[in-house]
Amino acid sequence: MSSLRSLYDSKGDSPGLKTNMGVDYAIHFNIPKDPKERAEAEASFTQLVESLTKIGLATEVRDGHDSSLLIFVKVASEQYLTTQIYRERVQDWLYGVRAAAPDKDVSTAFSAEPVSDAERLRLVYLLITRPKNDGGAGITPGSGQWKRVASIFPLHDHAFNKRWIKEWSSKYVLTERDLNEIRDRFGEKVAFYFAFLQSYFNFLVVLAGFGFGAWLILGRYSFFYAVVNSIWTVVFFEWWKQKEVDLAVQWGVRGVSKIQLPRSDFKWDHETADPVTGEAVKVYSPINRFKTQLLQIPFAAGCLVILGAVYLFCLSVEIFISQIYDGPGKAYLVFTPTLILTGVLPMLSTILGNFAEKLTEAENYETEDAHDAALVQKLFFINFITSYTPLFLTAFVYMPFGNLLAPYLDIFRVTAEKISAKGTITTQGFEINKDRLKNQIVYFTVTAQIVNFLLETIVPVVKRKATQQVEKITNKEVAAEDPEGEHAFLERVRYEASLEHYDVTSDLREMAVQFGYLSLFSCIWPLAPLSFLINNWIELRSDAMKIAVSSQRPIPWRADSIGPWLNSLGFLSWLGSVVSSAIVFLFNNETEGPGGEPWGIKLWGLLLSILLSEHIYLALQFAVRHVLSQIESPGVQKEKAERFNMRRRMLKESLGEEVTKKPIPPTVKSGEKITRQALEEEAREMSIKGSSPEQAFWHRQQGMDESVQVGRYIFSQHSSNKTAKA
Amino acid sequence: MSSLRSLYDSKGDSPGLKTNMGVDYAIHFNIPKDPKERAEAEASFTQLVESLTKIGLATEVRDGHDSSLLIFVKVASEQYLTTQIYRERVQDWLYGVRAAAPDKDVSTAFSAEPVSDAERLRLVYLLITRPKNDGGAGITPGSGQWKRVASIFPLHDHAFNKRWIKEWSSKYVLTERDLNEIRDRFGEKVAFYFAFLQSYFNFLVVLAGFGFGAWLILGRYSFFYAVVNSIWTVVFFEWWKQKEVDLAVQWGVRGVSKIQLPRSDFKWDHETADPVTGEAVKVYSPINRFKTQLLQIPFAAGCLVILGAVYLFCLSVEIFISQIYDGPGKAYLVFTPTLILTGVLPMLSTILGNFAEKLTEAENYETEDAHDAALVQKLFFINFITSYTPLFLTAFVYMPFGNLLAPYLDIFRVTAEKISAKGTITTQGFEINKDRLKNQIVYFTVTAQIVNFLLETIVPVVKRKATQQVEKITNKEVAAEDPEGEHAFLERVRYEASLEHYDVTSDLREMAVQFGYLSLFSCIWPLAPLSFLINNWIELRSDAMKIAVSSQRPIPWRADSIGPWLNSLGFLSWLGSVVSSAIVFLFNNETEGPGGEPWGIKLWGLLLSILLSEHIYLALQFAVRHVLSQIESPGVQKEKAERFNMRRRMLKESLGEEVTKKPIPPTVKSGEKITRQALEEEAREMSIKGSSPEQAFWHRQQGMDESVQVGRYIFSQHSSNKTAKA
Repeated sequence: MSSLRSLYDSKGDSPGLKTNMGVDYAIHFNIPKDPKERAEAEASFTQLVESLTKIGLATEVRDGHDSSLLIFVKVASEQYLTTQIYRERVQDWLYGVRAAAPDKDVSTAFSAEPVSDAERLRLVYLLITRPKNDGGAGITPGSGQWKRVASIFPLHDHAFNKRWIKEWSSKYVLTERDLNEIRDRFGEKVAFYFAFLQSYFNFLVVLAGFGFGAWLILGRYSFFYAVVNSIWTVVFFEWWKQKEVDLAVQWGVRGVSKIQLPRSDFKWDHETADPVTGEAVKVYSPINRFKTQLLQIPFAAGCLVILGAVYLFCLSVEIFISQIYDGPGKAYLVFTPTLILTGVLPMLSTILGNFAEKLTEAENYETEDAHDAALVQKLFFINFITSYTPLFLTAFVYMPFGNLLAPYLDIFRVTAEKISAKGTITTQGFEINKDRLKNQIVYFTVTAQIVNFLLETIVPVVKRKATQQVEKITNKEVAAEDPEGEHAFLERVRYEASLEHYDVTSDLREMAVQFGYLSLFSCIWPLAPLSFLINNWIELRSDAMKIAVSSQRPIPWRADSIGPWLNSLGFLSWLGSVVSSAIVFLFNNETEGPGGEPWGIKLWGLLLSILLSEHIYLALQFAVRHVLSQIESPGVQKEKAERFNMRRRMLKESLGEEVTKKPIPPTVKSGEKITRQALEEEAREMSIKGSSPEQAFWHRQQGMDESVQVGRYIFSQHSSNKTAKA
Repeated sequence: MSSLRSLYDSKGDSPGLKTNMGVDYAIHFNIPKDPKERAEAEASFTQLVESLTKIGLATEVRDGHDSSLLIFVKVASEQYLTTQIYRERVQDWLYGVRAAAPDKDVSTAFSAEPVSDAERLRLVYLLITRPKNDGGAGITPGSGQWKRVASIFPLHDHAFNKRWIKEWSSKYVLTERDLNEIRDRFGEKVAFYFAFLQSYFNFLVVLAGFGFGAWLILGRYSFFYAVVNSIWTVVFFEWWKQKEVDLAVQWGVRGVSKIQLPRSDFKWDHETADPVTGEAVKVYSPINRFKTQLLQIPFAAGCLVILGAVYLFCLSVEIFISQIYDGPGKAYLVFTPTLILTGVLPMLSTILGNFAEKLTEAENYETEDAHDAALVQKLFFINFITSYTPLFLTAFVYMPFGNLLAPYLDIFRVTAEKISAKGTITTQGFEINKDRLKNQIVYFTVTAQIVNFLLETIVPVVKRKATQQVEKITNKEVAAEDPEGEHAFLERVRYEASLEHYDVTSDLREMAVQFGYLSLFSCIWPLAPLSFLINNWIELRSDAMKIAVSSQRPIPWRADSIGPWLNSLGFLSWLGSVVSSAIVFLFNNETEGPGGEPWGIKLWGLLLSILLSEHIYLALQFAVRHVLSQIESPGVQKEKAERFNMRRRMLKESLGEEVTKKPIPPTVKSGEKITRQALEEEAREMSIKGSSPEQAFWHRQQGMDESVQVGRYIFSQHSSNKTAKA
């Protein structure tokens, strides 16, 4: 089987893609190469099948090639799954995720709201991975007892995928229906990424248009462009925050982040009663965690120093070679810094990323969400430094202080001279390259995006093709043993097993970094939004392709937001107001004077422009929030209405009609004639009860008419007083 | 009747204070002095009694003296009231204010949660004032048809009041029990004010202690004090925000601000269906409202210009007379600016306040809350200018630029000379009074507070005593007509009718302004917190006294917060970080040089210190919020637990036990022996259904044991492959 891509392109479908054989999940199990480990691996495998069977899953085992097994799993009893799903829906309502409880009648509930692929797959995955005491099989891929479980993955629905890719490559804008389809297949977490990307794309259209105009008319470092850019980031960010809530309500997942998945690696020191549910919960001392969290400070400082030093070194070398050095081999030496960066940076990023993971592990969070959030925070920091440091250095060190620092770069010349023969190195006068900042931003917004695209989509395909060629040769003999009629299907599953997990976090990170370039630096080159617009149009489609073709089908997790990246976006939007204003202030009038004189810049002017810009930003944010909060989104309204109706219904059910109706006030005697009988009656009553002052007080006037009469009497008295006096 | 104060002091109780005669509300109705209006007033009175009777209230009418009627009102049927209260509790639950629905059995519900005075009185008040189509009598005191209804007020519970005042004057700290008692008598809105004041007082103890130490050791304009002060404001503000939620949960009013009282004066242009409840609601075009809201800009500018001009003029006059002028009458003339301010400011404030009210009226809000919030915003702005402008002028105009501006003040001399005989006016050299700032803050924190206290508590008592003396003489003849045994009671009610409404907003405003002095200017004089501490100790008690003795009993409104003042406090806390840092930067080293040279100040240093201080403030706020959010308050936890349990209970009730229990997974054949019979059975089944590839796939392995066997076989194969290859 060459590649799915080629299959999608061909007219007829391969037989292996037609059916999923009713499989819910495939489990990829590694067979150890070392015969000594065989016994232990077999025991683990047996346990795996036993555990799966115990929770009501049917299993089929096949050869996985390349020393692995494939264990196919499906739910044995549909009715059991239905109960599970129903239970989960009820639980959602218990935790306030759903406004209305599902219908009491199970079959009515399911016909009103059918089970989507995503819902089914998520529940089966939870069944497989949940701890045993929580009703699951407790299988945690890759860790502990299950270290040989390479992956647990659902099979791609290739009929859908094919249609999906075809549709998207021929339409410009994703509709709600498209997003709903993604949600139904791949879960809300992935759907939120696509929804974000599409919204971001839509907003970019406006900024790209404006940016193009600004590029034509205003040129770079335009004050006006910076202001519009800042407004744009605020409006987009605040709008997205609302859109997120709206989507979450529409998809019935609002507040789902409150129902947290426990982390399987969580280590606890004591148990205590949950203050809400009363059940026993495992607790890890927050003080110990805080102590570990404090390690983030040296970690951050370390990242800053190490990465900063690398960048600073490369900048120095680059300046020296390109602008001072004038000796032999200059044409080749110019590439030295780029080579250093390309070689060192990915390595450093990976090391620091691993370190961040270790640190987060040590912080020992109770839930997957808290763990992810803490990790994302650290990754964002690393990404922030690696992505923006070159620009920061150019804008705030090289450009203003270049002339002052250049003489120090002579150290390179001296060193080089010591190594080589004397006199061969010649130097030229240093002059600041005013285009450096623009060249850099062009590199980051255009070149780097193209390179990134190639790395993300083309390289994995090529890589896999090569390995498949190798595998084909080594595995030929096993292929023959596949049961009749299953060969094509099994080949396809083996192929899917060899694919990578789809990681939505890294795609979101990419977008956050891009948003940062836009917010912080796009005033340098107003074509940046246009470049990103084009990039994102392709990104949307290539990400879909990545999921459909070059990744395993993702586990359809739920989410009610793009998660911790939201904070990163907010931070970048705010920082943009500060950085943009500083850049515009520093370089706006570069055409007027020779520039480059750091003492020519009025420090108070710089500070004032930052101060003003930041406060205008904050005021703007406040205003946009206020305006948006006035507009209640349809989703939220729908939810409120549902919640209200559900409560009214429940109220009627449990309290009966009459309570919800308005009570009828009791009739007060409105002036019954004072008959002798009535007076006698009253006198008798009083003599029985004994007349207290209170009783006497309320018996002076019998009914409304008497009150009115007495009132009129007092009226007349006061009037006569007046007239008497007058 | 001389005064309640004297009664409370005496040993024996006056007979009029012993009982409230079971009265829920007294309605004070003015009788017109002009006989021409009598007919119309009588009609209105008759309608009033009719309307009250129709909604199930019993009435008694008595003479109110001084051309007025007193209409006493009580609920005719306790059962009717109970139904109303129960209905309201259910409604609270419908809107999510209560976590748990009240018990289905009404009497159980009321024994679990008895009706408090406040709850009863609030509901009766709502009955009286709610529109007729909403089941009320539709009586809106003072407006339209009911313009002669001077007030509707509940009667004081003097037994409680006496005990309350006695207790509070002998204890240092209010406990939760004290607050709960206030809540039960005067409603949550008043209780929140006292809770805030007590919390603020508790926090002040710390700052006052530190401030005293700083005063001894650090002196004024201390950088260190300013930092601690800023931390204190952040911690207090964030803590109070949490405390508020906690109290709201404890008092069962969390989210009560969402259930909004419609404003009776609201004018609507069209009707539309409520998106949540589906009922018809009246709507006023938000665009029209926005247009009116835009008038706030000229209004704010007007306030700023008018009040600023008055202050600037007074400052100039003061400087001229005290520091430049040296002619005759200086000793008297010095008081001119104070006289101008005392005369003009209250007048201006009242005019602007009235204007703010008119403007808010014109903005035409749907609900009381929105109206109040909009009004408070405007009042806060006026108060902000009147309270802080003198200090701003001294700190940022007089002190740095005094020397530059002094020559311009010669205009006064010239003017004065023109008017008077030439040569009589002598002048002296101008020198900046460095103590001016300190003197002013001492004035605002000590003198003004004492004056304010006297105005608030002593003056009204004196004023009332005087008017009572007059009334006593004019009303003697009517007194004789009071029914037997009711004279003392009626005299007391007449007295209460003559009292002012208690306005919790103005008390909160006073505290917000005080908090502002602390946050913005206390670095000038670190004894300020100590002074406020003493003031607030008295304030707490004098406010209690004000409610009990010199105001009508307040309508016990509900609230879940101190309302719009919260935003004001947040704003002041933030502004404090900016203003304090500027003041400390400007005056910190006043001892070193002669100062007063504005160009000696480094502008970039000032801007940098503001920028730094503000960002430290924001970071601090973030950190404090984070830490506080980690600590879940007991109230919120309790609410969550209640909500959870209620849902679980409802679930069991409506779905039956079995759904909430964990379902038992179906048993999958775990290795039944493959008998001939079984195989035949299967073959038959297949021939009936027709064997699809899917069926064939899942029938290759029968049950768990076969799967395991097949797996082991593949294991062995791979091992043999390995060994064969090796």
